[in-house]
Amino acid sequence: MKEYRYQQIAEVFEQQILTETLQTGNKLPSLRMICTENEVSLSTALKAYYTLESKFLIESRPKSGYFVSYAPKRFPGIPQISKPAQSVKSEDIDDLVKKVYHKYNTDHTALSLAIPAHELLPIAKLNKELILASRSLRDCGSHYEQVEGNERLRRQIARRSSAMGAQLRIQDIVITAGCVEAISYALRATTVRGDQLAVESPVSFGMLQLAQDLGLNIVELPTHPQTGIDIEALKHALETQHIKACLLISNFSNPLGSCMPDEHKREVVRLIEMHQVPLIENDVNGDVYFGALRPTCCKSYDQSGLVLWCGSVSKTLAPGYRVGWIAAGKFTDKVINMKRTHAIAGTSITQEVTAGFLETGRYEHHLRKLRQTLHTNSLQFARTIGDYFPEGTLASRPQGGSVLWVELPQNRSSLKLYEKAIQQNIIIAPGGMFTLQKQFDNCLRLNYGLTWTGKLENNLKLLGRLAMTIK
Amino acid sequence: MKEYRYQQIAEVFEQQILTETLQTGNKLPSLRMICTENEVSLSTALKAYYTLESKFLIESRPKSGYFVSYAPKRFPGIPQISKPAQSVKSEDIDDLVKKVYHKYNTDHTALSLAIPAHELLPIAKLNKELILASRSLRDCGSHYEQVEGNERLRRQIARRSSAMGAQLRIQDIVITAGCVEAISYALRATTVRGDQLAVESPVSFGMLQLAQDLGLNIVELPTHPQTGIDIEALKHALETQHIKACLLISNFSNPLGSCMPDEHKREVVRLIEMHQVPLIENDVNGDVYFGALRPTCCKSYDQSGLVLWCGSVSKTLAPGYRVGWIAAGKFTDKVINMKRTHAIAGTSITQEVTAGFLETGRYEHHLRKLRQTLHTNSLQFARTIGDYFPEGTLASRPQGGSVLWVELPQNRSSLKLYEKAIQQNIIIAPGGMFTLQKQFDNCLRLNYGLTWTGKLENNLKLLGRLAMTIK
Repeated sequence: MKEYRYQQIAEVFEQQILTETLQTGNKLPSLRMICTENEVSLSTALKAYYTLESKFLIESRPKSGYFVSYAPKRFPGIPQISKPAQSVKSEDIDDLVKKVYHKYNTDHTALSLAIPAHELLPIAKLNKELILASRSLRDCGSHYEQVEGNERLRRQIARRSSAMGAQLRIQDIVITAGCVEAISYALRATTVRGDQLAVESPVSFGMLQLAQDLGLNIVELPTHPQTGIDIEALKHALETQHIKACLLISNFSNPLGSCMPDEHKREVVRLIEMHQVPLIENDVNGDVYFGALRPTCCKSYDQSGLVLWCGSVSKTLAPGYRVGWIAAGKFTDKVINMKRTHAIAGTSITQEVTAGFLETGRYEHHLRKLRQTLHTNSLQFARTIGDYFPEGTLASRPQGGSVLWVELPQNRSSLKLYEKAIQQNIIIAPGGMFTLQKQFDNCLRLNYGLTWTGKLENNLKLLGRLAMTIK
Repeated sequence: MKEYRYQQIAEVFEQQILTETLQTGNKLPSLRMICTENEVSLSTALKAYYTLESKFLIESRPKSGYFVSYAPKRFPGIPQISKPAQSVKSEDIDDLVKKVYHKYNTDHTALSLAIPAHELLPIAKLNKELILASRSLRDCGSHYEQVEGNERLRRQIARRSSAMGAQLRIQDIVITAGCVEAISYALRATTVRGDQLAVESPVSFGMLQLAQDLGLNIVELPTHPQTGIDIEALKHALETQHIKACLLISNFSNPLGSCMPDEHKREVVRLIEMHQVPLIENDVNGDVYFGALRPTCCKSYDQSGLVLWCGSVSKTLAPGYRVGWIAAGKFTDKVINMKRTHAIAGTSITQEVTAGFLETGRYEHHLRKLRQTLHTNSLQFARTIGDYFPEGTLASRPQGGSVLWVELPQNRSSLKLYEKAIQQNIIIAPGGMFTLQKQFDNCLRLNYGLTWTGKLENNLKLLGRLAMTIK
């Protein structure tokens, strides 16, 4: 996954703009100068500027050239590191989740979801691949796939893992029915009822419900909106509590959008190895990075086999395919046996379609477009929140994925905002869904994995105005 | 599912032959007489005799008419009711299962499996339906299906359930990834680690492994090769042991091929209601009946919601689709929540294909052919076992499904037979796979869900000769 020349050039300017070396209103070098200085063609120079323009970092003024348009002050501030409350709330999150998550229809602007809208998915190309797969597959997919899953697909996942230094082999990978099933197997392979599980705070409600269904005790740990789980807090928990497993999202977490820097990933792996505690790594969003390169994963630093790396194409290609995977390290045999016993095998045909999509480079092609769309959207959301939400509203600034975390000024209830918004056909996910503690009442998660339209922009502005009126 | 006239006529003769009212060599009425007596056309009369001929019950002799060819003495006797041993064996069944079940290739004659061979499946038609489904489905199946599953499919399953008196509604049915996932959910909804689970003996190893993985204690109960679980034994177990759930195959059990008569089904439901013990009913083979009508299920007699009825199209249409279902009675909400938590949803596209196949009647059309093939095969197997296996060999006589149970004379080890057979590229499933007790060492399960060819016949004869040589 090498970087193109135009990306490298854009990257340099982006950094200068973000660090305010180049400030709003500054003129950028002419295209001709870019060509000469970088020894590139005019089309490469243009592409670099288009990239910056699409991110709203620069703007072209007729007959004058390109200028820095980015105004950092219009973006909301970033929330502080979370401090998990000590008081467990009385209500069950299940009811809230059911109310918010499962009662929407297509008329709603679904800011509550955490998957890209169908307009962002390559439906027509997937369909072509489906027809190819039905021809290439023995018996058109009517027969059992092997327990471990489609070999072509596992080869592709192994191959892609090298790009982030994980160097997995085909036999290290087991295909699952989406990332959720991967995590379900991982939890069942590493814990028993009553065990303590360390997670981020706030944490995806799906993970909370899964852990609760398995009878695990959840230990929510302080987490930074940019860098993820707090290393010191994790260290302290491993030293003082009987943590039996950790479940973390390394890249572009749900709901914060945080991404652990490499040195944090390395340190987390060092800590869990020292304490011999398995780490279940949810890396379902890792492919949707906005930066130049695919971030690494904790699995990249795993020497002991204690990291169970989980991923899927649900957030990038086709949620309805139910194709995910796990590289479970020393727990691989256990996971294979569990899958054989509880499922026999996965669905043959959707694995083959996914394999074809990855093999032919169509996946990478699609990802490039998806990443650009989501990056632009994330900036649009940030700008609109900065402009239209109550003074003092904070928002995380994800560098990948499709969700961000908004913190309204204290005492503004996101549950009340939910009630007001749904009357306008807008659905949000209130902060209370993402913890078992009594907290995050003034927070919400927003999904920017939608097509940015005038309607969406107006709805987001409306949401901001509604937030002004609630207390 | 009404019976055709020719089937009714054939049925009458079949009964007379099986009860030896008509004996081997007896001449049957002429076709003309059949027409007159039954007021049917010549083609209907011919069809009735063809049906009997295809089952090897009668044969036509040139210029003489039709004669009874069935010789009951050539069929092996039926085994006695099982008597579960009290001594638990030391070896793990997992190793045996892995060795036997998962190490075969296409060169092998796989008498060890329990699914129909791919030649018996309607691959080309399924493929056409796949293309239709990819068009009819919103976003070509790339999006999440509802948790409960495809509505068209659930409607079809509900509709079919009336034919056996179960009268289910759409909302009673939840689609699962095959019957195994249905049973996994059912067990997890009704039991916790350490509970006692009543099952048949011998019992499908898949069910044993599932129950073991969930930490359940398995109580194997006496089972009759024709009528299934022994009612008195079940009654006694419910009265004297702390049984928390029962897991039974009502129709064409694996491995025996037994089918519970209606009065047994009714009595089992009465018993579990009296003791308030949930019954997980595996009815995965119910559609593959050889008789005139689809047998009922225990669910047909369930008034209390304690029966969790599980099925799939894995044994009839496409194992690799992973489409099954559960009607979990009073546990339905629990199962839906579990599915939402552990899987989010099932694969969209294969559910849609299955729905289309059922809606258009293609499923019923295919089943008619499959049933006839399997019925004929079961008789071919029985005859060959009678002719070529050691004197005193017994075999169950299934009225549906694709497996039968063979009991070699005492002291003949089926494990030794397995070792000898695999050298000839024949794989069988030794009896030890179907129990946690020390028993069934002289038994084996055979799959007749294969195309009956000269090669298959020779291999079966060879297996019989090998059985003569082992001790």
